[in-house]
Amino acid sequence: MTNSKNNLSKQQREEINALRNSSNKTIRPVAKGIEKILYKVFPALDHGFVRVVDYMGDDQAIVQAARVSYGKGTSRVSEDRGLIRYLMRHRHSTPFEMCEIKLHVKLPMFIARQWIRHRTASINEYSARYSVLDKEFYIPEAKDLAVQSKLNKQGRGNTLSPKDSEEALFLLKRDAEKSYETYEYLLNENLQGDIVDKNRDGLSRELARINLTLNTYTQWYWKTNLHNLMNFIFLRADSHAQYEIRVYADIIYKIMESWVPITAEAFKSYRSGSVELSAEAMNVIKLMVNGKKVDQKKSGLSNREWNELINHLK
Amino acid sequence: MTNSKNNLSKQQREEINALRNSSNKTIRPVAKGIEKILYKVFPALDHGFVRVVDYMGDDQAIVQAARVSYGKGTSRVSEDRGLIRYLMRHRHSTPFEMCEIKLHVKLPMFIARQWIRHRTASINEYSARYSVLDKEFYIPEAKDLAVQSKLNKQGRGNTLSPKDSEEALFLLKRDAEKSYETYEYLLNENLQGDIVDKNRDGLSRELARINLTLNTYTQWYWKTNLHNLMNFIFLRADSHAQYEIRVYADIIYKIMESWVPITAEAFKSYRSGSVELSAEAMNVIKLMVNGKKVDQKKSGLSNREWNELINHLK
Amino acid sequence: MTNSKNNLSKQQREEINALRNSSNKTIRPVAKGIEKILYKVFPALDHGFVRVVDYMGDDQAIVQAARVSYGKGTSRVSEDRGLIRYLMRHRHSTPFEMCEIKLHVKLPMFIARQWIRHRTASINEYSARYSVLDKEFYIPEAKDLAVQSKLNKQGRGNTLSPKDSEEALFLLKRDAEKSYETYEYLLNENLQGDIVDKNRDGLSRELARINLTLNTYTQWYWKTNLHNLMNFIFLRADSHAQYEIRVYADIIYKIMESWVPITAEAFKSYRSGSVELSAEAMNVIKLMVNGKKVDQKKSGLSNREWNELINHLK
Amino acid sequence: MTNSKNNLSKQQREEINALRNSSNKTIRPVAKGIEKILYKVFPALDHGFVRVVDYMGDDQAIVQAARVSYGKGTSRVSEDRGLIRYLMRHRHSTPFEMCEIKLHVKLPMFIARQWIRHRTASINEYSARYSVLDKEFYIPEAKDLAVQSKLNKQGRGNTLSPKDSEEALFLLKRDAEKSYETYEYLLNENLQGDIVDKNRDGLSRELARINLTLNTYTQWYWKTNLHNLMNFIFLRADSHAQYEIRVYADIIYKIMESWVPITAEAFKSYRSGSVELSAEAMNVIKLMVNGKKVDQKKSGLSNREWNELINHLK
Repeated sequence: MTNSKNNLSKQQREEINALRNSSNKTIRPVAKGIEKILYKVFPALDHGFVRVVDYMGDDQAIVQAARVSYGKGTSRVSEDRGLIRYLMRHRHSTPFEMCEIKLHVKLPMFIARQWIRHRTASINEYSARYSVLDKEFYIPEAKDLAVQSKLNKQGRGNTLSPKDSEEALFLLKRDAEKSYETYEYLLNENLQGDIVDKNRDGLSRELARINLTLNTYTQWYWKTNLHNLMNFIFLRADSHAQYEIRVYADIIYKIMESWVPITAEAFKSYRSGSVELSAEAMNVIKLMVNGKKVDQKKSGLSNREWNELINHLK
Repeated sequence: MTNSKNNLSKQQREEINALRNSSNKTIRPVAKGIEKILYKVFPALDHGFVRVVDYMGDDQAIVQAARVSYGKGTSRVSEDRGLIRYLMRHRHSTPFEMCEIKLHVKLPMFIARQWIRHRTASINEYSARYSVLDKEFYIPEAKDLAVQSKLNKQGRGNTLSPKDSEEALFLLKRDAEKSYETYEYLLNENLQGDIVDKNRDGLSRELARINLTLNTYTQWYWKTNLHNLMNFIFLRADSHAQYEIRVYADIIYKIMESWVPITAEAFKSYRSGSVELSAEAMNVIKLMVNGKKVDQKKSGLSNREWNELINHLK
Repeated sequence: MTNSKNNLSKQQREEINALRNSSNKTIRPVAKGIEKILYKVFPALDHGFVRVVDYMGDDQAIVQAARVSYGKGTSRVSEDRGLIRYLMRHRHSTPFEMCEIKLHVKLPMFIARQWIRHRTASINEYSARYSVLDKEFYIPEAKDLAVQSKLNKQGRGNTLSPKDSEEALFLLKRDAEKSYETYEYLLNENLQGDIVDKNRDGLSRELARINLTLNTYTQWYWKTNLHNLMNFIFLRADSHAQYEIRVYADIIYKIMESWVPITAEAFKSYRSGSVELSAEAMNVIKLMVNGKKVDQKKSGLSNREWNELINHLK
Repeated sequence: MTNSKNNLSKQQREEINALRNSSNKTIRPVAKGIEKILYKVFPALDHGFVRVVDYMGDDQAIVQAARVSYGKGTSRVSEDRGLIRYLMRHRHSTPFEMCEIKLHVKLPMFIARQWIRHRTASINEYSARYSVLDKEFYIPEAKDLAVQSKLNKQGRGNTLSPKDSEEALFLLKRDAEKSYETYEYLLNENLQGDIVDKNRDGLSRELARINLTLNTYTQWYWKTNLHNLMNFIFLRADSHAQYEIRVYADIIYKIMESWVPITAEAFKSYRSGSVELSAEAMNVIKLMVNGKKVDQKKSGLSNREWNELINHLK
């Protein structure tokens, strides 16, 4: 049904191109950077993608809301930047809620299960009760297959040996394909929903799909405001997040940069690049700045926290 | 500071006109009806208003999300209408969450306190800790002054006698003005924030404002999705809601009609115009439809519910 | 690891019994009905369950909050009942938010994906990034295997023929077991996390689990308030919901009955047993009650809505 | 109607005592510290208070949810403490959502308007549409009357001179009393709701109350989970928050300490006592720790940020 790596059929490409070639007049504010990428497909993993489907507001909308103003607010970019940085630094989050974005995302189900934990968003997902899922499942690249981490109990450590990696990929593919094959067999219908083998009943879609593996792709429309988008990026682009969702979070950060560049810069300074130090760690810093020697024992920090602090100071 | 009933200074009018006279190109969907009213002031009560400041999506965005489609979806309006009505009837609310609207509202504080009970919205309110509030308070029209209702324990009954009404208006005005006068005196500052009477200290804004009466106007940016907007209208345009918030809800319904006309029509059929009948009331209806005579006693309904049912059948 | 149908190991049973045999003093309100079932396992499907782990409030807490009272409120049950029914009928939902419940649920992942769409709840799920999932997957009973419904495009129709049903069960079991076997092989670790086959690397848990089928069981703590619990029951005990989640919703309704019996009764009258009639359908009812003959054509209703109405009148 | 500073009538005191003298058996977990203060009145400002009305869970419930366990979990307090501190440090917030608290709060309306900005809570407020408000308004103590701050544009600076302070208090009292007097006059009813002066109509409650000043007291039941409670304390016990809401936040923190002492301790280390340093500030710290001299110019920080950093190092 689809003829390319990122799962767009010819018809889908044509639909997207038609939208990109349209041009409408509006008196709403327009964010030029994001208009350039609207509707486009940003590939993620082997079959997934992220597309911006719509947006509302721009950097200036944040300023305008913070000031509850009647018009566009000040035209001096420097003042707007100062205000946005102030809002970000002091966690005044409501003005950032004034911008909204709607994404179309294709993603494996095990990632969808992590993603949906972000509750303050609106979602419409492709229904496998109503429709038949495509034969698409995520198979990692060899470089991303790794052993359980010894340090981070929920993460990955070293890459698998080439031999073990090859075998793992073989097994993942085999089982996903086998499960999908059974799914198709149980459904016993063609694309139009007609029974293929008239001598047996097809199983309902809501039941047949339970046979699919967790790496099967699904897709959804996901809409959230800029404040919650930043929370998503903060948590999911983090090194503790599973690699596969990080791929999506990184794409979304790039989208954010093209949409609200001033906010993205402030986000880098005060959120994604910032460091939170505990009361105890801050005491250690004070001693160090005053030229005192401190080691883990004297610091009063646990081993783990001490190592985290030393890492921040590198 | 303002020179008109609806509290727009010359500068504010100019800012609004500048926005209305702008024209931007976008490849996003545009909802033609709402573009015509964007930024305009819809007066409410004596000094309040509602203005649409931005929006995202239209009727078609609902269809598109319900189908998780790549393009604009079907171009046949009749199919879209059928789908929207189906979604509304069966309370499939998530596709309606895909549209978003941002309003600028000026409203008395006692209404703001009711309004904010709708939690799934984003708000930026004019800060009376940071800025000085204008001398504007809601004084009802004589026709809206009424006694406590005997039937609805939280509503209004008959209109006050002309004499009592005149007196009430006199008192409301007098106290609001007196309180504002004290507020100004305590602040002891001019518009630029300079002390007016150098021989005494001005009180901080966050404290001086506690002297104001609850009918003082405030304003905010309020952003919500279409699903929650309909909940707001459903509850606040209802006859049990306080008259003053109904005025706002009615305006917002008109705005909704210009924005998403097909959804507004479905809302009228299945939400605002619908009737919910209890299991017990439905049993009475069945008897009646079959030509049986039923009275309150036989019905098993309480007096109150019986009356509600009879009302619905009128 | 577990030795019974409902997946409780001996140790788990002992832990549950220990809790049930404890007795603490509290001056909080206690809901006697739910104390009797606290911690107990209510089996669901083949390996799932629902357990109440904690609760807060009872019928009286709703009354107390509605009245913002200092003490327990009235001791006359009849008044409390009247108030609760009034609140339910008029959709005054905030007092129902004053009761809270915490459940421990074991459920297949494809159901977890539907369940989590209820956003106003708190969830802690067993982490398959951190821990190894048990070998448990949902296999339907033959009676629940059905073809795609012709009427309800997302539901089930008639039961499969015995032969087809037998084959389907065979395939579902085979693939789930095969996938789990590969999962175990890829992990290459025993319960203590040690490598089993030293000659090859084990794959990290967060990756190995992507090979599992969607009927694999997971479990979580799910905490929500009574208002949202009723929304859950309303939507998920509905005939349009997938059978497997209905099983859980029905159990939860029983739990609700033992917890807040007056509220449960009102819920039955005004929510789960109520009928919502559109403005147009209500017009038809009025004609019928007045002895007029109406058919679908004259009614102005679509075929679908007409049938729904006739069904309600049966 | 009330005979004490904190607005408890004899009847209310008796109701509270009756609850405190009750004793119920439960097999739910009981948090001993908070049982000791349950229902008690913690006075706030001149007429306000905070009372714990109910709670669910304790420190151990957090551990239990994080582990999705069947029983009480480990009995070793040291392990539980380590896990709670880990969850707090790494902002794993969902286990903290598993504890819930319900407060009864009496507070001035201008504080209620700030408080309600915390959206993820359930509220039932005393209705001034339905009932008559008591004659109680917040009058600050002289020590809390201050001029507008020069540094913090939304806060307070130095205390007013004794003369100006005396005058301000006189005016605040005078206007609040006058407004309340008018309110009573317009209502024209006694406590039972009967008209007092038969020669004139009483104004409905929902309208008469608009004449009251913003320092009038209201009260509500407020229920939230521990995660959101900590957000409330973090933001509202902060030095940038208005003094009057800080009074409430400080009381609530004390309540939290008696309820979940281990979590409260971790909150102090990693939230309320922690410092967040921007990417740029962290670079300055690194230089300083390595013995380099840095001044504002070299730092690349704005004046404001530089001063904030130096303050943290004191």
